Formats: sequence, C-alpha cells, structure tokens
Amino acid sequence: MSGDGRPDRRSSWQALASHAESMRSVHLRDLFDDTGDRFAHFSRHTAGLTLDLSKQRWQPETLSLLLDLARDADVPGAIGRLLNGERVNLSEGRPALHTALRLPEQASLLVEGEDVVPAVHRSLARMEAMVDKLHAGQWRGATGHAIQDVVNLGVGGSDLGPLMVTQALADYRPPEAERIRVHFASTMDGSQLADYLARFQPETTLFVLSSKSFTTIDTLTNARTARDWLFSRLVGNGDGVKRDLIMRQHFIGVSASPDKMNEWGIDPTNQLEFWEWVGGRYSLWGAIGLPIALITGMANFRSLLAGAHAMDCHFREAPLADNLPVLLALAGIWNVNFLDIRAHSILPYDGRLAYFSSYLEQLEMESNGKSVTHDGDVVNYSTCPVLWGQVGPNAQHAFYQLLHQGTQAVACDFIAPLKRYDDVTDPATREHLIDQHRLTLANCFAQSRVLMLGDDAIDDRVERPSYKRYRGNQPSTTVLLDRLTPETLGALIALYEHKVFVQATIWDINPFDQWGVELGKQIAGDTERVLVSGQGVESMDDSSRGLIQALWAAESSVPADEPKKET
Amino acid sequence: MSGDGRPDRRSSWQALASHAESMRSVHLRDLFDDTGDRFAHFSRHTAGLTLDLSKQRWQPETLSLLLDLARDADVPGAIGRLLNGERVNLSEGRPALHTALRLPEQASLLVEGEDVVPAVHRSLARMEAMVDKLHAGQWRGATGHAIQDVVNLGVGGSDLGPLMVTQALADYRPPEAERIRVHFASTMDGSQLADYLARFQPETTLFVLSSKSFTTIDTLTNARTARDWLFSRLVGNGDGVKRDLIMRQHFIGVSASPDKMNEWGIDPTNQLEFWEWVGGRYSLWGAIGLPIALITGMANFRSLLAGAHAMDCHFREAPLADNLPVLLALAGIWNVNFLDIRAHSILPYDGRLAYFSSYLEQLEMESNGKSVTHDGDVVNYSTCPVLWGQVGPNAQHAFYQLLHQGTQAVACDFIAPLKRYDDVTDPATREHLIDQHRLTLANCFAQSRVLMLGDDAIDDRVERPSYKRYRGNQPSTTVLLDRLTPETLGALIALYEHKVFVQATIWDINPFDQWGVELGKQIAGDTERVLVSGQGVESMDDSSRGLIQALWAAESSVPADEPKKET
Repeated sequence: MSGDGRPDRRSSWQALASHAESMRSVHLRDLFDDTGDRFAHFSRHTAGLTLDLSKQRWQPETLSLLLDLARDADVPGAIGRLLNGERVNLSEGRPALHTALRLPEQASLLVEGEDVVPAVHRSLARMEAMVDKLHAGQWRGATGHAIQDVVNLGVGGSDLGPLMVTQALADYRPPEAERIRVHFASTMDGSQLADYLARFQPETTLFVLSSKSFTTIDTLTNARTARDWLFSRLVGNGDGVKRDLIMRQHFIGVSASPDKMNEWGIDPTNQLEFWEWVGGRYSLWGAIGLPIALITGMANFRSLLAGAHAMDCHFREAPLADNLPVLLALAGIWNVNFLDIRAHSILPYDGRLAYFSSYLEQLEMESNGKSVTHDGDVVNYSTCPVLWGQVGPNAQHAFYQLLHQGTQAVACDFIAPLKRYDDVTDPATREHLIDQHRLTLANCFAQSRVLMLGDDAIDDRVERPSYKRYRGNQPSTTVLLDRLTPETLGALIALYEHKVFVQATIWDINPFDQWGVELGKQIAGDTERVLVSGQGVESMDDSSRGLIQALWAAESSVPADEPKKET
Repeated sequence: MSGDGRPDRRSSWQALASHAESMRSVHLRDLFDDTGDRFAHFSRHTAGLTLDLSKQRWQPETLSLLLDLARDADVPGAIGRLLNGERVNLSEGRPALHTALRLPEQASLLVEGEDVVPAVHRSLARMEAMVDKLHAGQWRGATGHAIQDVVNLGVGGSDLGPLMVTQALADYRPPEAERIRVHFASTMDGSQLADYLARFQPETTLFVLSSKSFTTIDTLTNARTARDWLFSRLVGNGDGVKRDLIMRQHFIGVSASPDKMNEWGIDPTNQLEFWEWVGGRYSLWGAIGLPIALITGMANFRSLLAGAHAMDCHFREAPLADNLPVLLALAGIWNVNFLDIRAHSILPYDGRLAYFSSYLEQLEMESNGKSVTHDGDVVNYSTCPVLWGQVGPNAQHAFYQLLHQGTQAVACDFIAPLKRYDDVTDPATREHLIDQHRLTLANCFAQSRVLMLGDDAIDDRVERPSYKRYRGNQPSTTVLLDRLTPETLGALIALYEHKVFVQATIWDINPFDQWGVELGKQIAGDTERVLVSGQGVESMDDSSRGLIQALWAAESSVPADEPKKET
C-alpha cells in the first residue's frame, strides 16, 4: 500500500486528482466522439447481468488510475478477508458474513475454527419446514383454522429486503403458495398494523417478529399491539382459548437472540435464529427472508441465494479490471471524490423493482454514510452520496426535469430486464405487454442518451430557446438483467452489496456498523419519558421545549369539530 | 426592485453572501445557547399547521436579510399575480390557477374577462354525480353487474397526487364508499396493470384514464391493454356484448382535451374536463382527484379543498414575516444558496404520509429543477436541491446514518400530527396505538434535536470513540399538524406549493413549465422505432448501440431453462 494512512494522501489519489483537473471540463459527448469502442471497453457481463459503464465521464486512463487506487487500498486483500470471515467489522469486532448465507450445502467455511455452513443449511431446512406447513394449510391458529394472513413485523433490514424481493418476484409465486397472503407492517406509529387489525381475522392471522436484536422498539411495539389484539379477540370472546396456545400458534420469531425471543414468549419451536455476523441490511439471505420463501416458495428462495453466490464467486475470482462490483464502485468513487457529484439516482425500468431504490438507500447510506476512518480520523473527503430513486418511467414524469435542466450534477443507475412477458398465456395481452416492455426499454435507453448528449441527442431544424435546451453531461450506468429471475435478482443485490464494500475499503471506513443510529435511540427514550412524565423539559433546548409544549396543549384539548367518540 | 436583472446581483443577495461568511462556521448549538427565545421568534401557526423554523442555521438578522431579498424579488407582487390569474407561466403563456380549483362557490375570479369559478364548481358537481353513482352501485358494467374495482390509469401528476392523498386519508372513508375499491396503475411497463388484469373481473372493473394532454404514452399504452382485455374477455365469450357498451360502461376520461378523449372513444357523458391553466403536478384539486373523492367521499374532498383555500388566503394576506410559505421558502434559499446544502430530506412521522415525499419530489424538482431565468440567461447559482424521503421512523433504520455521520450536509423537514387514535373504539387497542403515536413523536423530536446538537444532545460520563461521535449542525424544519384531516392535509400541500412558487420567484425561474421532459419523450419515440425496425442504430452513439444490440440478441434467443410456454 503506497503512502499509507489516509487514502487522499496516496499517490494514486493524487494522480486522479490531477487527472480530474483536465477531465472536469470535458463533455461526455466529446468522449464518445473521440473513441469509437467505449461500449466494448467499459461493459462487462456476468451472472446474467450486463454492466455498461461507458456513459461515465471517464476514459481508459481514468479507469486505469482508479484501478491503481483500488490496488493501493488493497481491495483484493479486503475481498479475501471479507469472504473468508475475518473480523472486517472492526468497531464491533466481528466478521460480516452475509455471503456465508448463500454458500452451497457442500461448501465449508471455517470461521474462527468452526464451519458455519452446516448451521446455515440447518436454518434453511427449518425455514423450509415452516413454509411447507403454512403452504399446506397445516399451520393452524388457536381455534383450529388454517393460517391465511402472515404479517411480517420488522423494520429496516428486517422489512426492506423481504419487501423489495417479494415485490420483485411476485410473478414467481408457485401454486402451493396461493393460500397464504403476506403483509408487511414496519412503521412505529402503527399505521399499517391498525389497518390490518381492522381487516383481518385473528383466528387465521400469524405474526412474524423479525428483529436481529429483538429489542427494536418499532417492531416490539407493533408486536405488543398485535398480541393484545389476539388476546382480546380470542381469549376475550369466552370460548376458552388459552394465551399460551395463542402464543404458540400465532407467532414466529426471527432473531440473533434466542434469549430475548424466549423472554417475549416466542415458542422455541417457532424460533428461527441467525447470527451476529449478519448485518441487518444484509440479512434477507437467511431467516429474515421467510416472507420471500412464503411468497415465492423455497425453491425460488434457493435460486435467489444461488444467484448471489454466483456474484460472490465472480467478486472473489475476477481480476479487478473485469470485476463488476469493483468497476461499479470505482465509477462511484470517481463521481463523488473527483467530479464532486453528491447525488445518485437509482432508476429501475421495471415496476416490479419499485422498492429497489429504497432498498439501496438503506444499503448504501447506512453502510457508507460515515466520516471516520478505521484509525479514528475524521475524513476530509466525501464518502457516500445521497441516493434516491423511483421506477424510471414514473420518475420521468416527476424529477427527471431536475436531471435534465437543474443546476446540480447527478449520477444515475438505469436498471432493466432485457426479456419479459413472453410467457403470458393470452396472445393479445402478451402482444400488448411485450410492446409495453419494448417501449419501456426505448425510454430507458433514450433517457441515458439525452442525459449524456443533451441537445446533441437530437437534430434540430430550428434553434430552440434557452429554456428548451439540455446541457447533457450527466453520467450514468446501465445494468441490464437478461431477465428478472430469482437468480439475476440475487446477483444484482450482491453486486451492490460488494460495490458498497469496495467503496468503504477505498474510503477506509467501516461499512458494517451503524453507530449513527444509536444515540438517536437513546435520546428518543429520554424524550418519551419527558413527554409522559412532564419532567425534564426545562433543561431542553428552546425548540424542543416549544414542540413538546405544543403536544401537551393538543393532548389536553378536545377540538369542537371532532368530538371524541364513545367507546 | 433593486439591482434589477439577476438575483445574485441584488444588494440583498450580496448582503446575505457576506452575512453567510460569518454564519457558515457557527454551530446551531451556539445559536441556541446565544438566544433563549428562538421557538417564539421562528415559529408560526395557521390553518391547523405549526411551522417551527428555529432549528435552521440562521438568526434573526439572517431572516431579516432574507425578507429584504423577498421584497427585492417582489414576492408580494408575484403572489398577487399568481392568485389573480395573470400569465405567470411565461414560456407557455398562461396562468397557473390551481388555487382557483379550491375557491368557494360564492367566490369569483375573472381571468381574462371570464369568471372561472362557475366552471370549477360545475366540474365538481359532475364529479360528485359520478362518485354517487359508483358508491350507490348504480354504475353497471356492460353485463349489468355493479362496478367494484376502479383502476386509475395515470402517471406523474395524474397518479402521485391522488395516490398520496388517498393513502393519507384512508381513515376518512365513509360507509357508502366501501363498495368501491380503488387501484392505481402508472408504470409504463404494465407491471401493476398485468397484476390487476390477472386478479379482477372484467364485468365489474372500470378504468379512469387520467391525462391532462390525453397523449401520455405511459397511460395510453396501459389503457389500450386494458381495453383489449375487456374486449377479449367480454365480447370474445360470445354473450353478445357490444364494444360501444363496454366503452360506455367501463371508461371514464379526465383530461384538458375533450377532442382527444372523443378520439379515444371516451363517451362524452363520462368525460371530466379540466383546464390548460392547471399544471399536472398541481391537478389533484380538480377532476384528477376523482380517486380521492371515490375513497374519502365528496364531503371530505371538499374539506381538502377548503384547507388548501385557507392556506391560499393566508398566503395572500399575511405579511411576509408571518407568511408560512414565504418563511419555508426563505429557509430553503438560505440553505441552498448561502450554506451550499444541496440535499433535502422529507421525513413524515406518520405512516399515512408514506407517499408524501414522492409527491414533493415531483412538486419541487419538476417545478424548480431549472437553470434558465425568465430572460433566458443561464443561472450561476443553485436552484432546486435534490429531495428525497421516507416515513421518518423507517428512515431512522435506513439512511439516518448518513444524516448523523455522513460527510454531506442535508436539510430535513420533519412532519407529524399532534393528535391521533383518540377515536379508536376498542379501549385496549386505542391505548396501545396512542402509546405508539407518542413514541413516534418522541422519536421525531429527538431526531431533530440530535441532528442539531450532535454529541451535546446527551450527557456523557465517558468519552466516546470517534466512530460514536455526532457532529450535529444539520438544519431542520418541523411542521406539526394539529391532526391529519382533509383540511390540514390540504393546507400542508398548499404550503409546499406556495413555497415552491416563492423560491422560483427569487431564483427568477418558471416553476410551471417542464421542458426538461419533452426532449426525452421525442427521443424515446425515435429509439422505439429503431428497436422495432432495426434501422438507424448505426448513427447512434456507441453505448446506445451496444445496449440495443444486447436487446436484439436477447429477443432472438430462447433460454434453455425457460422454454416459452405454449399459449
């Protein structure tokens, strides 16, 4: 590692900084005019994914300097340490082994002397047994009726991953899964849960409590409301149902803490365990993925794992210059640190990927929204940009205006499947839907082209007024999936997971902790005590005091136009 | 107007720039230490909303300079011109009169000699008649069954507004609305629609085609698929249903172009018209709001309008220094133009506002993602920041890490209702849900406090390592709703609409056009022709060529593991 210590003192970083001086004023259009083979040079295919980085504002020399930077940061060594289960999460002193969750059964991975693979596959087998029982209608509620509605109570990684994947793979629901409807309740304020409780039958509703620590207040507070709803509806109606029978038949727990699950009353046979070495935002690959397995079936869930594993193998084996996660990471480093692009938009051209941008918002910003190096120094360079997104064609009618004519540079990721709808049975509908898919791809390709070329994307016969002009020069990446399948989705998610890791390695930050949320939790507890007790507000800042007093005033008032209903 | 022409050449802008020099290094914590009455000084209440701007990184002098800037930009005159129906949308030569849609029946507004109010209320009356007919089960499908499922086909403003409001006001569904289920299909790729067509009965499904121009390809392509599905399922089954009967009983059109609706075959009695002077992203207040009226009932829809109208009156009448939209706008100008904060996060602490941030992404970025002044000059200052958001408590488990410990400054808007759940009938559930609401508010107040104070929000007994430290100094706004009702939601949306207008006035840009999307539409059509015909790819750039060739290769292949199903 040259110029050790801070990344920005490395010679490769300095070389990039001076290279950027000359590149900053070069328009993407000119880069395409200068060389004819950018697509061949900057695109790669693996695991059912095509990655086209040719619309980044870089040239071969840039990439070669970025690869130097990656080597200086010992990215190859870091990849090895990650995949081998070393303690890469330094602040918490543990490995980050989400990749172990997708190792095949015959593999083995010794972590501090113990092979973790058998336990992973035992957990999958336990999941499978639960899934089979629910699919078969053999899982009965306390009054003997088969469970119909499964509500996942979880938030963050215990919500977004399963939610995103179940939406993406809804087409893959096998016939045996049709009996079970799966729902998600994540918000602490009870909004979604209140709606479910008003609509579902307690007799046939089962709750999955998903929380790595099993102390997540959002989830536990929803769980408490759900439990008391079951008690009051099933015990209260006098047919003699016992509380422990309700606990046994209506709750599954998924956590890394069996003790906490026991304490809460989750029956040991209904506990799915995972491990401290799986970060919450990387946890959909194991027991947290139960809702995925319930909707897509266990075979498709295993295919999802296999797709991610294919990307893991590629990540380990491919040379840096052909390594998709590394290349994607380097494009980001170039944009953030050398072109000062602070925003990044995720734009899937497929409605099934509606939650993919929310998923990546968590994955990237929670992992790399950091500013302290492994040595404890505060960085003086940018790390994670702000990420946001939306289904692409919808965003065209919303915020693309800013991408095309705003004042700020934004890097974009376009994501789309190449083939779709050829398995629809009704011929007329199939034809229409295939046309819709082609139209969608046409929009995808056209938008990245206009963002790149600006006005030059079109031959004008007349001069346009300035408010109709487009400056172009917005860099983008396009990721094409051969088709959206469990395998390619697994590979796509793993691609971004590893991209995040490579960027963290170069920035010398820890992507696996999240200390930035802990203080917030602590102070929320303090604030709640103030709200309830009325004590302690005087020592707070003037704004917090004003807000709390507004709440107290509201709580003690009964507006005339909305009389409190009699209960 | 002093120093006319470019805003950044005005003396008030210059004064702010030099004031910012001294403010940039001042920590928010110190501002609170220095003065004890920031909440009183920087918060205001109107129309059921409390706006707390005391956690912005400003002091009274800053606000006073910003008010000078607003006066220099003639914000009061601009407000008058907007509300009076002058042609404020210069590039398209028309007024922007969404505020006219919420004028009470007895009002009058002469626009170029004609009172627009009677037409607005005639349109509401027509909507009401349709809503009543559907609610009463009197609207029958072609085979005589009452309509049950209404699918809104629309995108952008014809989707996000109704979607956001119906989600927010789902608690306000009156008993008579329960017969009708409302759904939204927006994505061009047919994802949502394909799912509905697989599940719904054509006999009882009605489609609302919502498109201002009635040329929106996303919507029309979904509509064509829907129409042919109805034809093939209802005509094709040989029971003699006529196509024109299907057209008459299964389609409503909402557009500013009756000609185009006629052409498409929308029966004139099923047409709801609105006007060129209503921008798409401001259109939920009229006929585009049909799904809102279907779910919440017409009385609640009128309350929504009344709430927005209350904010309009405030906007017109309140002095600048007490004017909520003006103050909110000035905080944004200060952050973007003087503190160089380029990202803005929208964080509702209420699950019912799940789509509010997507809604604002469109409203703000499509309106003010511009870089050309009214005179046609390219600006050399920043305009609209990147906006994104998520339900606050969920975002705490996702991207708050970046807000607390990332390297980039982000301005945040916290939004929450003060009262909730006191009308839930079951006492135990009510108690739990009120607790959940209080916990949610505690989190809301705690997070803005930690973002402001950083480490100082908490008394430490021991020194924390640097990875556990928080720098604070992230500015935020808190908007409290007395309660989330149709009225306060209307006022909240209008607050942001007017904020956007004030910022545009100061930036000297047109918030009412969207030329940044037009070129994209044109080139998408060109690209689709290339995809279908195979002609013209050679004249494209190398990246687009590569992507298109990848598509062609995929189209001509049939993967071995997914044989095309027989039809």
